[in-house]
Amino acid sequence: MVNIEQCLAALTQVLGENDKDVPLHEPKFNGNEWQYVKDCLDSGWVSSVGEYVTLFEQKIADYTGMPYAIAVMNGTAALHVCLLLADVAREDEVLIPSLTFVATANAVTYCGAHPHFIECHESHLGIDLDKLRTYLTQIAIVKDKQCINKLTGRRIKAIIPVHIFGHPIEMSLLQTLAQEFHLKIIEDASESLGSFYRGVHTGHASDIACLSFNGNKVVTTGGGGAILIKDEALAKKAKHMTTTAKRPHRYEFYHDEIGYNYRLPNINAALGCAQLERLPQMIENKRHLAKRYQDVFSDIQGASILQEPQYAKSNYWLNALILDKPDRSFIEHFIDSAVERKYHLRGLWTPMDRLPMYQSSPKMDLTMTHQLFDRVISLPSSPHLGGVYA
Amino acid sequence: MVNIEQCLAALTQVLGENDKDVPLHEPKFNGNEWQYVKDCLDSGWVSSVGEYVTLFEQKIADYTGMPYAIAVMNGTAALHVCLLLADVAREDEVLIPSLTFVATANAVTYCGAHPHFIECHESHLGIDLDKLRTYLTQIAIVKDKQCINKLTGRRIKAIIPVHIFGHPIEMSLLQTLAQEFHLKIIEDASESLGSFYRGVHTGHASDIACLSFNGNKVVTTGGGGAILIKDEALAKKAKHMTTTAKRPHRYEFYHDEIGYNYRLPNINAALGCAQLERLPQMIENKRHLAKRYQDVFSDIQGASILQEPQYAKSNYWLNALILDKPDRSFIEHFIDSAVERKYHLRGLWTPMDRLPMYQSSPKMDLTMTHQLFDRVISLPSSPHLGGVYA
Repeated sequence: MVNIEQCLAALTQVLGENDKDVPLHEPKFNGNEWQYVKDCLDSGWVSSVGEYVTLFEQKIADYTGMPYAIAVMNGTAALHVCLLLADVAREDEVLIPSLTFVATANAVTYCGAHPHFIECHESHLGIDLDKLRTYLTQIAIVKDKQCINKLTGRRIKAIIPVHIFGHPIEMSLLQTLAQEFHLKIIEDASESLGSFYRGVHTGHASDIACLSFNGNKVVTTGGGGAILIKDEALAKKAKHMTTTAKRPHRYEFYHDEIGYNYRLPNINAALGCAQLERLPQMIENKRHLAKRYQDVFSDIQGASILQEPQYAKSNYWLNALILDKPDRSFIEHFIDSAVERKYHLRGLWTPMDRLPMYQSSPKMDLTMTHQLFDRVISLPSSPHLGGVYA
Repeated sequence: MVNIEQCLAALTQVLGENDKDVPLHEPKFNGNEWQYVKDCLDSGWVSSVGEYVTLFEQKIADYTGMPYAIAVMNGTAALHVCLLLADVAREDEVLIPSLTFVATANAVTYCGAHPHFIECHESHLGIDLDKLRTYLTQIAIVKDKQCINKLTGRRIKAIIPVHIFGHPIEMSLLQTLAQEFHLKIIEDASESLGSFYRGVHTGHASDIACLSFNGNKVVTTGGGGAILIKDEALAKKAKHMTTTAKRPHRYEFYHDEIGYNYRLPNINAALGCAQLERLPQMIENKRHLAKRYQDVFSDIQGASILQEPQYAKSNYWLNALILDKPDRSFIEHFIDSAVERKYHLRGLWTPMDRLPMYQSSPKMDLTMTHQLFDRVISLPSSPHLGGVYA
């Protein structure tokens, strides 16, 4: 049994005593945010066309090293478009972790496709690739370069790895597996802006990936997201699809396919431009915070702080305390006790296969996912808590 | 043949001579916009939870007189949710004008339903209700309180009236027709914020309606929209659906149905709150501008400015010059000539039935729509051009 008083003391060592709430993750706007937003208001260009959108997209591409970035209004929209770009069609199946935010599963259903839930590994909370290989070998066959689920008869078109809490999974192993089973990879890097896999930013292991700039993310635009793309033609297609598929014309309105109004407004992009300027400092802060959590929790029996895989450099989006054994009552008690000290902790997302709308979706054995749901607590992880930079 | 020089001279009388571009419609941020946006940045609450969202929703409800307003990230999202709230299902048909912005049709397809295009009337550019009645009597039958399209065998579930350029259609006649044919009405008031039908704001003729706050609209939030709802339970459902269907809980993440991430960020709502404060002045400006256009174009042969129906008070979102006879070449020539004087005009949207993805959709005779496409030009209509208020 983990000692709750010791855990609270450890938290206090890192977070100090506070009059004000310490949220799970909050942004700071102490760079050029106000200047850029004001410039945007002064110009009158707050909406879907504007210089900050272009600049923001360029800055994202520069930082991640992906050739093209298309800004959209949130990570869910980015994922939806990624799935469409990957030709995921009605009645296809898409492999996704049961341990993820609900947007991953919902985006699949927006395409009329079925999420197919897969197991995670306790060492990084992402997909367990060994178990997945065994599972696919059992239930899938490859026929005419398509992966068919023998149990449902449906095509398994794609797989969405999620770098949970910013910790990259072992993408080279996933690439091998995906190639073998003819699965398209869509990298969900929503939580991993600033996380690197073997020296390369997350998102490079596939042709398309997505980012999120929600209010609780490392970089926020209020609400926002981006699609990362390698291929120029595909990037043009993504831009077209997300801007109502309108053909460029000075005054005519002609749309040549079913499009989406997923544009990021310029005012939100202005915020993002300023935030991105401070991203390297924020990551350093966050890594320092992670180190402090690791230090103070190192003596506590029965629990430990999740650390980045040895092949990766993680942004430590959310720091996770992992209990050696499942203990739902400890988690609830710990969260409640921490709130009394103003610390806002959180449990894991309810596993997707336990949500009512996904209870009958195809899935593999999810024992570890369900265990981890009763073992993991997220700790306050705002960049400024790291204390290296203001 | 309309005299183009006379038209240009009329435009100049209203718009003056300019060094800078006169866009079709642009916002001004000379109220409390800066203050509220700055307050939002200072508070750190820029994202999906925040006081400005609640305040914005309350202000919209107060202004329109609809009991509930749910802020979302754009008009397309608002329409999509309205259709879901109206129980529009896969393979249903939804009657919409062919003369509208593409979002109306796209939102229908997002539900897996089929847009069914209907004819407009030249007096207000909205649905021609007489022709629609004749058409429905021919092609539809009511069976078990459902309207069935005899030609396709599909259920016609709903109708979306659009108040084109802010001019309300005769909603009491539509209500009678809709009742007779068991059609749900979803009022698309995207263009008619500040327009009143028989003394009541647009949106009241049905249980659900939508607004848009795109950059080109009377009030802008960068990108934004709202769902207007009469019923409390339905309003709660709309809020739930647009916020990922997450059950309220302090730290748990449990979603009980397939939801959408359609929340309006707080920073965009802050902009909207300030804009709404000036809405009455903006409407007065816009109505004054319309009067000036009507005056200067009154002497011009073969063309006239569209005026509000006698039963309505319109916001005159976009002023429309209507040629007596179709003349595509005049329209193109006029738009090109006006640009030389910095005036940005625009033609009508390409009729929906002419877009490649909707060419095989069901439709009634659309002669007037196609005629109007070659008869209507939109004129610069930004509120400040009215000159009553700065």
